[in-house]
Amino acid sequence: MNLLSHEILIRVRYSETDGQGRVHHAQYLNYFERGRVEMMRSMGFSYKSLEASGLMLVVRKMEIDYLFPAEFDDELLLATLVLHARGARIRHSYILTRPMDKQQVVTAKSEIACIDRSGTVRRLPGYLQS
Amino acid sequence: MNLLSHEILIRVRYSETDGQGRVHHAQYLNYFERGRVEMMRSMGFSYKSLEASGLMLVVRKMEIDYLFPAEFDDELLLATLVLHARGARIRHSYILTRPMDKQQVVTAKSEIACIDRSGTVRRLPGYLQS
Amino acid sequence: MNLLSHEILIRVRYSETDGQGRVHHAQYLNYFERGRVEMMRSMGFSYKSLEASGLMLVVRKMEIDYLFPAEFDDELLLATLVLHARGARIRHSYILTRPMDKQQVVTAKSEIACIDRSGTVRRLPGYLQS
Amino acid sequence: MNLLSHEILIRVRYSETDGQGRVHHAQYLNYFERGRVEMMRSMGFSYKSLEASGLMLVVRKMEIDYLFPAEFDDELLLATLVLHARGARIRHSYILTRPMDKQQVVTAKSEIACIDRSGTVRRLPGYLQS
Repeated sequence: MNLLSHEILIRVRYSETDGQGRVHHAQYLNYFERGRVEMMRSMGFSYKSLEASGLMLVVRKMEIDYLFPAEFDDELLLATLVLHARGARIRHSYILTRPMDKQQVVTAKSEIACIDRSGTVRRLPGYLQS
Repeated sequence: MNLLSHEILIRVRYSETDGQGRVHHAQYLNYFERGRVEMMRSMGFSYKSLEASGLMLVVRKMEIDYLFPAEFDDELLLATLVLHARGARIRHSYILTRPMDKQQVVTAKSEIACIDRSGTVRRLPGYLQS
Repeated sequence: MNLLSHEILIRVRYSETDGQGRVHHAQYLNYFERGRVEMMRSMGFSYKSLEASGLMLVVRKMEIDYLFPAEFDDELLLATLVLHARGARIRHSYILTRPMDKQQVVTAKSEIACIDRSGTVRRLPGYLQS
Repeated sequence: MNLLSHEILIRVRYSETDGQGRVHHAQYLNYFERGRVEMMRSMGFSYKSLEASGLMLVVRKMEIDYLFPAEFDDELLLATLVLHARGARIRHSYILTRPMDKQQVVTAKSEIACIDRSGTVRRLPGYLQS
């Protein structure tokens, strides 16, 4: 059995920090989303094409542990893993670290559902099943 | 001739500030957008309904003068004015002040175009012409 | 024993929606933050003053269940509850509903820690203990 | 005389789109900011270090022409140019294109001022003068 995983580097933008000089805690969800999109691309699929075909992936659950504050200009490594992808659901986990000093920044888990434009739950396309 | 204008109060959210402890300069455009939507509502119209009817208002030009930094939790007064609304274009101006000390924060002007879903320029609905 | 709770109304801004025409899932964390700030204000305290005194509240954990998609211009009711506030930690829960049709949109829980500017964990000010 | 310029590629994130399925017009300012930061880095300087030294660059004026809507997942090329950098001011211009079809997306100009933490205008460090 092989676990799907994918890594991307993310440079923290100024607009992502808040008055504490740290990455605002809501921004990490945007990083995770980018991780999922780039993982699909690395598998040869496009989330944009999936939406064009009438399906959407929507977040149903998100659990985040904030361990250490990332700051402006930090270069972060996001590992995105698929824990489960069957039926209409994908469960991912995320590990965000700062490679410079091996600091863990955030870990998280999410559950994503596949729906169509009417909101009806739909089976994942075969290529997303694992 | 009467100039259309409308005022709203905006409380600065933490997520809108940046590492300088100030409102991030891109956020003011979101305030202006809110000003335009609330102005339409005050006239008895809904921007949501306009989009449901197949028309969209898109920003074509934006000019912003940043005069003074607003901070987290500031209560700001946004005055939105219609300078011109004819054919397919609306020109607005915006004055954002901090009433507490009468400080001017930002002034701006924008040009908005009315298009349909295919991107074709369309005449403004009559109720938006001035 | 009385449970602290506080309610605010939130109007969804256009800039908070995404390409699916729904509120982007990361935006709800900004709403929760606003709920916490307004709850403090309703108790007679200011989060801005807390930060000026050298203390910060930082999010350590966040768990979110997305139940129903909110859309542009929806008026939402956010109830923020304090489940626990002792030592250096506050645990909140959040219930976001759309009053128009009593639809539950999102429920969530968070854990917040009080730290000083050096990042050291500090006891909550007495007025925040419950 | 040589004009300073720098180019970066930007992939549009889902969270940067709005209910029209296009990049929200406020997001382009975040791209321009990223362009300025990466341009400094390419010259061997760090905006983070500049702030650590007690100076900040703040946006005073911004003029944007929106020519064509970018969409989710588009790969965009941002060219950032320094038009003028003397005293306490830098004037930049920006050209954002979609290389795939050579479509111009946005052009803009900004004026940035150098200030210290008290808000006093300060001369640019020598390495930023042109």
